[in-house]
Amino acid sequence: MNAQIQNLPTAGDYKVADISLADWGRKEIDIAEHEMPGLMSIRRKYAPQAPLKGVRVTGSLHMTIQTAVLIETLKDLGADVRWASCNIFSTQDHAAAAIAATGTPVFAWKGETLEEYWDCTLAALSFPDGQGGFLGPQLVVDDGGDVTLLIHKGYEYEQGDASWVESPSSSHEEQVIKNLLRRVAKERPGFWARVVADWKGVSEETTTGVHRLYQLAERGKLLVPAINVNDSVTKSKFDNLYGCRESLADGLKRAMDVMLAGKVAVVCGYGDVGKGSAQSLRAYGCRVIVTEIDPICALQAAMEGYEVKTVEDTLGEADIYVTTTGNRDIIRLEHMLQMKDQAIVCNIGHFDNEIQVDRLNALDGVKKVNIKPQVDRYDLPNGRSLFLLAEGRLVNLGCATGHPSFVMSNSFSNQTLAQMDLWANRDRYEKKVYRLPKKLDEEVARLHLEKIGVKLTKLTPEQAEYIGVPVDGPYKPEHYRY
Amino acid sequence: MNAQIQNLPTAGDYKVADISLADWGRKEIDIAEHEMPGLMSIRRKYAPQAPLKGVRVTGSLHMTIQTAVLIETLKDLGADVRWASCNIFSTQDHAAAAIAATGTPVFAWKGETLEEYWDCTLAALSFPDGQGGFLGPQLVVDDGGDVTLLIHKGYEYEQGDASWVESPSSSHEEQVIKNLLRRVAKERPGFWARVVADWKGVSEETTTGVHRLYQLAERGKLLVPAINVNDSVTKSKFDNLYGCRESLADGLKRAMDVMLAGKVAVVCGYGDVGKGSAQSLRAYGCRVIVTEIDPICALQAAMEGYEVKTVEDTLGEADIYVTTTGNRDIIRLEHMLQMKDQAIVCNIGHFDNEIQVDRLNALDGVKKVNIKPQVDRYDLPNGRSLFLLAEGRLVNLGCATGHPSFVMSNSFSNQTLAQMDLWANRDRYEKKVYRLPKKLDEEVARLHLEKIGVKLTKLTPEQAEYIGVPVDGPYKPEHYRY
Amino acid sequence: MNAQIQNLPTAGDYKVADISLADWGRKEIDIAEHEMPGLMSIRRKYAPQAPLKGVRVTGSLHMTIQTAVLIETLKDLGADVRWASCNIFSTQDHAAAAIAATGTPVFAWKGETLEEYWDCTLAALSFPDGQGGFLGPQLVVDDGGDVTLLIHKGYEYEQGDASWVESPSSSHEEQVIKNLLRRVAKERPGFWARVVADWKGVSEETTTGVHRLYQLAERGKLLVPAINVNDSVTKSKFDNLYGCRESLADGLKRAMDVMLAGKVAVVCGYGDVGKGSAQSLRAYGCRVIVTEIDPICALQAAMEGYEVKTVEDTLGEADIYVTTTGNRDIIRLEHMLQMKDQAIVCNIGHFDNEIQVDRLNALDGVKKVNIKPQVDRYDLPNGRSLFLLAEGRLVNLGCATGHPSFVMSNSFSNQTLAQMDLWANRDRYEKKVYRLPKKLDEEVARLHLEKIGVKLTKLTPEQAEYIGVPVDGPYKPEHYRY
Amino acid sequence: MNAQIQNLPTAGDYKVADISLADWGRKEIDIAEHEMPGLMSIRRKYAPQAPLKGVRVTGSLHMTIQTAVLIETLKDLGADVRWASCNIFSTQDHAAAAIAATGTPVFAWKGETLEEYWDCTLAALSFPDGQGGFLGPQLVVDDGGDVTLLIHKGYEYEQGDASWVESPSSSHEEQVIKNLLRRVAKERPGFWARVVADWKGVSEETTTGVHRLYQLAERGKLLVPAINVNDSVTKSKFDNLYGCRESLADGLKRAMDVMLAGKVAVVCGYGDVGKGSAQSLRAYGCRVIVTEIDPICALQAAMEGYEVKTVEDTLGEADIYVTTTGNRDIIRLEHMLQMKDQAIVCNIGHFDNEIQVDRLNALDGVKKVNIKPQVDRYDLPNGRSLFLLAEGRLVNLGCATGHPSFVMSNSFSNQTLAQMDLWANRDRYEKKVYRLPKKLDEEVARLHLEKIGVKLTKLTPEQAEYIGVPVDGPYKPEHYRY
Repeated sequence: MNAQIQNLPTAGDYKVADISLADWGRKEIDIAEHEMPGLMSIRRKYAPQAPLKGVRVTGSLHMTIQTAVLIETLKDLGADVRWASCNIFSTQDHAAAAIAATGTPVFAWKGETLEEYWDCTLAALSFPDGQGGFLGPQLVVDDGGDVTLLIHKGYEYEQGDASWVESPSSSHEEQVIKNLLRRVAKERPGFWARVVADWKGVSEETTTGVHRLYQLAERGKLLVPAINVNDSVTKSKFDNLYGCRESLADGLKRAMDVMLAGKVAVVCGYGDVGKGSAQSLRAYGCRVIVTEIDPICALQAAMEGYEVKTVEDTLGEADIYVTTTGNRDIIRLEHMLQMKDQAIVCNIGHFDNEIQVDRLNALDGVKKVNIKPQVDRYDLPNGRSLFLLAEGRLVNLGCATGHPSFVMSNSFSNQTLAQMDLWANRDRYEKKVYRLPKKLDEEVARLHLEKIGVKLTKLTPEQAEYIGVPVDGPYKPEHYRY
Repeated sequence: MNAQIQNLPTAGDYKVADISLADWGRKEIDIAEHEMPGLMSIRRKYAPQAPLKGVRVTGSLHMTIQTAVLIETLKDLGADVRWASCNIFSTQDHAAAAIAATGTPVFAWKGETLEEYWDCTLAALSFPDGQGGFLGPQLVVDDGGDVTLLIHKGYEYEQGDASWVESPSSSHEEQVIKNLLRRVAKERPGFWARVVADWKGVSEETTTGVHRLYQLAERGKLLVPAINVNDSVTKSKFDNLYGCRESLADGLKRAMDVMLAGKVAVVCGYGDVGKGSAQSLRAYGCRVIVTEIDPICALQAAMEGYEVKTVEDTLGEADIYVTTTGNRDIIRLEHMLQMKDQAIVCNIGHFDNEIQVDRLNALDGVKKVNIKPQVDRYDLPNGRSLFLLAEGRLVNLGCATGHPSFVMSNSFSNQTLAQMDLWANRDRYEKKVYRLPKKLDEEVARLHLEKIGVKLTKLTPEQAEYIGVPVDGPYKPEHYRY
Repeated sequence: MNAQIQNLPTAGDYKVADISLADWGRKEIDIAEHEMPGLMSIRRKYAPQAPLKGVRVTGSLHMTIQTAVLIETLKDLGADVRWASCNIFSTQDHAAAAIAATGTPVFAWKGETLEEYWDCTLAALSFPDGQGGFLGPQLVVDDGGDVTLLIHKGYEYEQGDASWVESPSSSHEEQVIKNLLRRVAKERPGFWARVVADWKGVSEETTTGVHRLYQLAERGKLLVPAINVNDSVTKSKFDNLYGCRESLADGLKRAMDVMLAGKVAVVCGYGDVGKGSAQSLRAYGCRVIVTEIDPICALQAAMEGYEVKTVEDTLGEADIYVTTTGNRDIIRLEHMLQMKDQAIVCNIGHFDNEIQVDRLNALDGVKKVNIKPQVDRYDLPNGRSLFLLAEGRLVNLGCATGHPSFVMSNSFSNQTLAQMDLWANRDRYEKKVYRLPKKLDEEVARLHLEKIGVKLTKLTPEQAEYIGVPVDGPYKPEHYRY
Repeated sequence: MNAQIQNLPTAGDYKVADISLADWGRKEIDIAEHEMPGLMSIRRKYAPQAPLKGVRVTGSLHMTIQTAVLIETLKDLGADVRWASCNIFSTQDHAAAAIAATGTPVFAWKGETLEEYWDCTLAALSFPDGQGGFLGPQLVVDDGGDVTLLIHKGYEYEQGDASWVESPSSSHEEQVIKNLLRRVAKERPGFWARVVADWKGVSEETTTGVHRLYQLAERGKLLVPAINVNDSVTKSKFDNLYGCRESLADGLKRAMDVMLAGKVAVVCGYGDVGKGSAQSLRAYGCRVIVTEIDPICALQAAMEGYEVKTVEDTLGEADIYVTTTGNRDIIRLEHMLQMKDQAIVCNIGHFDNEIQVDRLNALDGVKKVNIKPQVDRYDLPNGRSLFLLAEGRLVNLGCATGHPSFVMSNSFSNQTLAQMDLWANRDRYEKKVYRLPKKLDEEVARLHLEKIGVKLTKLTPEQAEYIGVPVDGPYKPEHYRY
């Protein structure tokens, strides 16, 4: 099959960096399983009924050790899984190898080119039909919405609307996608219609991806029911907050070995990711400055004692810049040119366009010196240098190994419950964006308590009645913020 | 008028502890105004239009210095205000005196009996009609829902449903209310119908009070439109969290002068109040143990490094118990009998029934020794003693002066905007519970930024479009949790 | 006796604000005893031997509830005690009353004038000889060195060196002392020689007082052996650090009820007092700026993420100023004139000259408005106002109740052990400044562990040998910094 | 020369893992130089005078990037340097390669055997005399005291005292040293006498190494003057505390990718290393339990809110164990057998004997599974597993890259100043252990302030006089604890 995918050398129905890393990957998967009680408990509870028996599932999600446990959970539930990473730097090669070694098709390695990346995405949603052709997935596990984007754009193009695909892009990545879609149009006529016909739903776990889904739904263009996993409490308030609290410093340390104490760090954005990032940096002894557009979040930052000002006001003073916003152009070329010598710039928000990497690369007279993988020093025309981590992509995944297993077990338990829910309700759900019911959210939390020795108090019937909730929950109104 | 209110000696149309404290109160109100930029800004912006001109407003809310600034803001907007406290211990007598001295009827002093308390509440909603009778309020500012309760119960009784009023109560406070309603029924026939006829709305700012409103609305018994001020982000995530983070320790210190470092403190409940309480105690060097019924909140507590177990498991180990739940029977007599000698027990949740104070007082062989106002030592039959603060009522208001002005400016700006909104939409709103629109929530935050030197970043139009929000907000979807 | 002391009306051999507060004081002393396990344990261990039997002890130390427990410990050990406070605002009147009620001469009330203060100090060191004359103390418990100063200066003057007493002072307080010494010279000829003849030692517990002692010793002018209690680890690293961490915010809250979150606070000095102050303010959500002269302490502050700059650089930006240095002129009039409107200025270091209060009071056009005891608003000629707490004296003692009992139990256990040591070695010690041996320092710590549930690990003999210490300690070299 | 050193293949006068890593190492050295302002400033100030011109210096200190900057600083000062690592796992191979590439003899690679390690140490102190023989160093930079030990033991043996060398050792490492000394005795008769004749001093930077020096000095056996660099404030209160605060979590993360939030971590020892470790783990959301033998440190831990108990009391409850003590047998085999399944055990104190690794390896039925370099899983006979990091050696150096540059710049500035001091005073100093004068300690701090934007306040002459210190310091008495 891969023969049809340019840039992907054939090697069985998978493409990884080094299949010989499978043993090491397996050892780390074993360790991770102990740290992912939610997924393991779901396996124990539901595997016997095989609720996803034979369902074709495409995943586009950082191909890490933790994701390996998710993949094997989906397989335990009966699914037929294909996988790609959702970031060119985030794959852990030993994890990919371990999954490939079990016969699950996986297309991911650390350091893909953008062309390779989108080819991998296509490979992950191309289930051989046994007759030389391809079927699409019935369900999609998405992170950042790239699979969803590809299907929607491919289908739109195939249906005759060429306005997007045929227009030239200033963004290199967009152009890569357009080129791919044109190639697919030639090589696989009618492919996207077949994909859409079988597709029953998508669960999405990032703020950015969810945002895209709501936009599609609002415009009436969403092709399938979607579950917003990101806004489960046990996702957004855990993965985004506690995950980044652990993995930001990890990325900085592995990349730069820099002393954080005494440094001035600017955290752009004070949402959940920003909150976790700021808390971590302060705990290390950084003086943290926050930038915000939202007055409520800005006031929260101030109540925690952070100085809140603009990026412009920090130039020349700050040593470290971290973008966490999910928006674009947060750190602009003009900013970078005014930074202190040896400033470190990185992104833990979402796409690399939080930092104007393209403009930096295109700057006249700039010199890019690679220090080690994912760490580049830019010698600027002004005589100063700055360090850009992971080429502006997610620093925790590019320079470290992403969030730790325990917090991902929360996110991935939500993903798994969402996949089961989408399949079980495939005939009932409309083409809208749903959230998981609070009861399931509480269940995800509950599955993680024993591992860390938490002992819950149980409401008495009198107490439950007094506050008007069932003894076993759900305990809070929908608008509760935790 | 007061002549008709048993227990309230006539002294002009107010009843305070000592009117000579007015000067001191005024000086502190002056200070507070500098710390309440939200209210002051609302005055500047709206007073010229007098949006509440002549509107009769009853307030039932801790009669503190901060509340004085709220009252004077409402008056600046044109309202005709009467006020009572919503807690027998929470009045600051100099604040009440300063308000009384301006001619605004206020009925509140620190250390009311329950009988006096409910008489004050009645006085606050009795606007003289100039003919010896009384009109009710057109709007109510409620905290804990006591005015709302009194009107609903009074009206129900007056309409012929005596099932509640005529049944005997085991709770002393309930019996006081019933007695009052029977007296009103005799003294003021038809009073409640006239009150209900004029009443246009209530804004409520506590979790407990809001909960009651939703219950009334669900049962179709809510008599007016209500605005849930508690669940504005700038209320629940500020007052409840940051307010308690400052005022819990303040209450403990003024009451007991106790060293917190090295102590074991149990915080019952890890909602916003519990989060603020736990954070404060840990910062002082307490080892904090959390109890929870909700697995999500329990997992949050664990992620912050708190030990989570049951009250039972802490007995004999912990020095300080703080209830924050909004539920009843959290600290039971059985618990108190097994506590360490000299344990301190207090409540910063809502009602005093979070702790079984009644059962403690009724215990055979117990000896209650008053140390100073709001601090009682109970010598238990087992030879040990414990300290109960503020008789189990809110320790920050009973033993200190409640939340500081700045955070209350957020809450009270929400209250004020809610009052204006209720009045402006009095013909449009249904008898339901509303929340303030996010745009106003953001506005409240915005009004507080300058005072603390926060400088917001402004979205570019490209950025706003990229994330799909207006440049000036609102910036977040309704389900966003902050 | 008091008849001879101008300003001190006779009322038995004590002078307190209100003897009727004794019962309340006694109840709080009972509570404090439970929080002062070090002192109580010393009573149990040593009282049977009465090691201070009949020894005349003068104390000059904040007359608080905690000090009452110290006084009664000294009495239990056999001493004949007289006491004064060492600060005009720090007395807790119910504590003084409770001590007076037991027959122990105490001369202290909250809000003394400077004249009264020094008269009280004299009264505390005047033990009636039964013949209308006075004996001096055999031991002195000093805090800030005022008793030591008075004896040294009085003796110097009496011995014929009038250079200091007869020269006019720009400082009001110095002039008061000089006037007193002239009066004593007239009323009690030869008094100081008799005092010095009997005096066997002094233990001193503050940085400032100790500094004076070292200076006296260096110049060969120290009249008795002295023990530097301040530099016991269990004093300087506990009282100064953990004590202030609890009592600074307590003072600010009781004085101003101010919201600390979001404020900019400047902590002048980053010694132990500054470290505790900064940590507390940050925990409340202040943004803390530190000023320092010592590069090592400055680097420590930076490593904790504090911004370190000069007072000048913070003017107009900061809301709260706290001096912690033990030096003079830290906050100067020029600074105060450039502060933000409504800035709060206070001192938790030592003397009121950390802030230029005298110059502020003397400023042309300034208006001082008393808000409540220990809280003054200064309306400046520039149209702005600032709040000065406790007239620039110790804010934790002036506006709150000082350090909590548990930490004072450490300091006072050191004081008590020092008194016993001074007496036991009165014939051996030279006129030098000693520190308590590390073994006793460790003993003080050990006496406080059980109360807070600490369980120590015990060295095995092999381990003790491996690191070359006795199994039971002392465990560290003298230069160890903890 | 290496020909004579068994196990060290000849390859020029150095032995590193891979000389081709030199370029990468150089790039990281360039980065580190920006983070080590102390060393760079010393170069600028002193290099022109070449105070160590031609002096033979042997270093035994973790061969990291930071150490490379130290080595090149010593060379800039004129020294003739040879280097080995002081830990078999701590070498960064690219750092060693970069140093070797400049022609400086260095003998170090990550993952030496103990035999190789001691051969490297010998190579580092063997300066070719140009005639096929060897001279020893004139100065030694030591970390842990291994060079000092080797010279002292070699000299003792050579002088005829064979009691230690000839007795068999139960410790494998001791036996390796003895074997080496016997070989040297054969191959280089009279070598140690020549070494001792030229040796002028040693500076030592660890608690353990310093402890050994004091023991030698007490027994009158110290062969040269020594400077205790460890107890400079800018070393012990910076490197030990802030260094470990950054590098412990770094080691844990790189080794295990484990979620720290919600875990129970036991920190054995609450000295500076323990303080930094505990603070870091708590900031990540661990619940931290401390074990201590010293009541003062135990009380400090309690004041910070840590639970203090024994290792035995934590078994079955804790997930992570970190030893920080400098003592032996802290985690015993019996402990490991009772730990929770999947517990992580590591050491950041000093030697690997803090954990009973030898007994664990020798346990009947144990299975050691290597996960990746420096991470081993032990499957215990009881069916549970535990993870041992870096074979029980320093986890921050074995699993990560040690302390970050900025903090090491403090330690190494002390080392460099000590080397200059030893050489300048080589004729004056006695065979004792000295500390650097406080003035130099302050100077080291001062050199690091500008880099992080700290602005010091300057004492006025009046203030300096008031507190009795010079305007430019030193500011504190020797016993001050910071």
